[in-house]
Amino acid sequence: MNQLLRVQNLTVSGDGFGAGEGQSLERPFGHADPGEMFSWAGATASWPNRTDPGGTRGLDDYFTRDFRNNIGAEIMGRNKFGPQRGPWKDLDWRGWWGDEPPFHTPVFVMTHHVRPSFTLSDTTFHFVDADPATVLEQAREAAQGKDVRLGGGVTTIREFLDAGLVDTLHVAVCDEVVLGSGVRLWEYPEELLDRYHLDVVPSPAGAVTHHLFWRR
Amino acid sequence: MNQLLRVQNLTVSGDGFGAGEGQSLERPFGHADPGEMFSWAGATASWPNRTDPGGTRGLDDYFTRDFRNNIGAEIMGRNKFGPQRGPWKDLDWRGWWGDEPPFHTPVFVMTHHVRPSFTLSDTTFHFVDADPATVLEQAREAAQGKDVRLGGGVTTIREFLDAGLVDTLHVAVCDEVVLGSGVRLWEYPEELLDRYHLDVVPSPAGAVTHHLFWRR
Repeated sequence: MNQLLRVQNLTVSGDGFGAGEGQSLERPFGHADPGEMFSWAGATASWPNRTDPGGTRGLDDYFTRDFRNNIGAEIMGRNKFGPQRGPWKDLDWRGWWGDEPPFHTPVFVMTHHVRPSFTLSDTTFHFVDADPATVLEQAREAAQGKDVRLGGGVTTIREFLDAGLVDTLHVAVCDEVVLGSGVRLWEYPEELLDRYHLDVVPSPAGAVTHHLFWRR
Repeated sequence: MNQLLRVQNLTVSGDGFGAGEGQSLERPFGHADPGEMFSWAGATASWPNRTDPGGTRGLDDYFTRDFRNNIGAEIMGRNKFGPQRGPWKDLDWRGWWGDEPPFHTPVFVMTHHVRPSFTLSDTTFHFVDADPATVLEQAREAAQGKDVRLGGGVTTIREFLDAGLVDTLHVAVCDEVVLGSGVRLWEYPEELLDRYHLDVVPSPAGAVTHHLFWRR
């Protein structure tokens, strides 16, 4: 089977934004409220950052449970890795995730400002200044036959979509969250229908509508 | 995390039967038509027995894709393993699945007529004459920390349900298939609501309704 490039558990607002405006150290998603947007995932038993016991094991859990399944590498944009812009002033920044990042694979951070690779627990971060196709090639090799996760943010996902490199996308749309501005994935999900099939499935929990795309 | 006992991708008729009457070598599901009942799964890209390329990658594929995820052993009833009844007359029978069974783990076949274990490719079949709790204990040890799949048939699943041993169930109900008789899982899915939460999710493909149960 081919190594897929997969977008998993990407959550966007009802008006198509993956994050709000004004990202900062204190507000990784800008003016968007991540607690509101990600509550569907945080309620599931398999949510990687879950600290309290219990949690749901219904449909939403199928998506969070699948997060690590057959994934051998992740690609992310620099703004998912941190709030800094331009040349690195401080190499002490090692991502938002503390000493135990939830990736457990090599992670390729796309940036024009490369820096040395480093390892936290079983996650190694590499910094690459290259076009999407080249980065995907490196990630596939690192994934050793497994799939590659395209972790976002949405600007990075747009670049890979425009290059025709994304095989499947799972996007959870928070129908009742309206951000008005920020970093946009799409105007409407149907924009992708020229290139992808689409299943639209309501979450039984009611907060989101799952959108599953795969190539035509 | 605990090792779960999971029912996955179990398909039943609209009136609650997992198989029809009259199982035989030629008709593993008796008078039920497996082509009709399992078409939702066979259409997906991740269906283990898929031989032609392509296939869907929407919601239904999430379930077939999940089949092997974190599963370290399977428990099945003797009637899933073969059509014979009573003492073995022919140890040449090694299951329905040919030289490459789709399990890839130890499989524990529950039977009052034990026979020696054997291995086909990366699947080893063990034959055990014991109660559900004892078999589950053996399967958990063999699974080495991973979950255990309860593979069916429905009579075996009923025994484990009655013993309170099942953690999660995914049952695909073929709403339009009426068998009238056979081996029954339930009269109605709601019978389990005293012990389980339930998400009911229609398949976008339209042929089945996915039922996801987890413990209260």
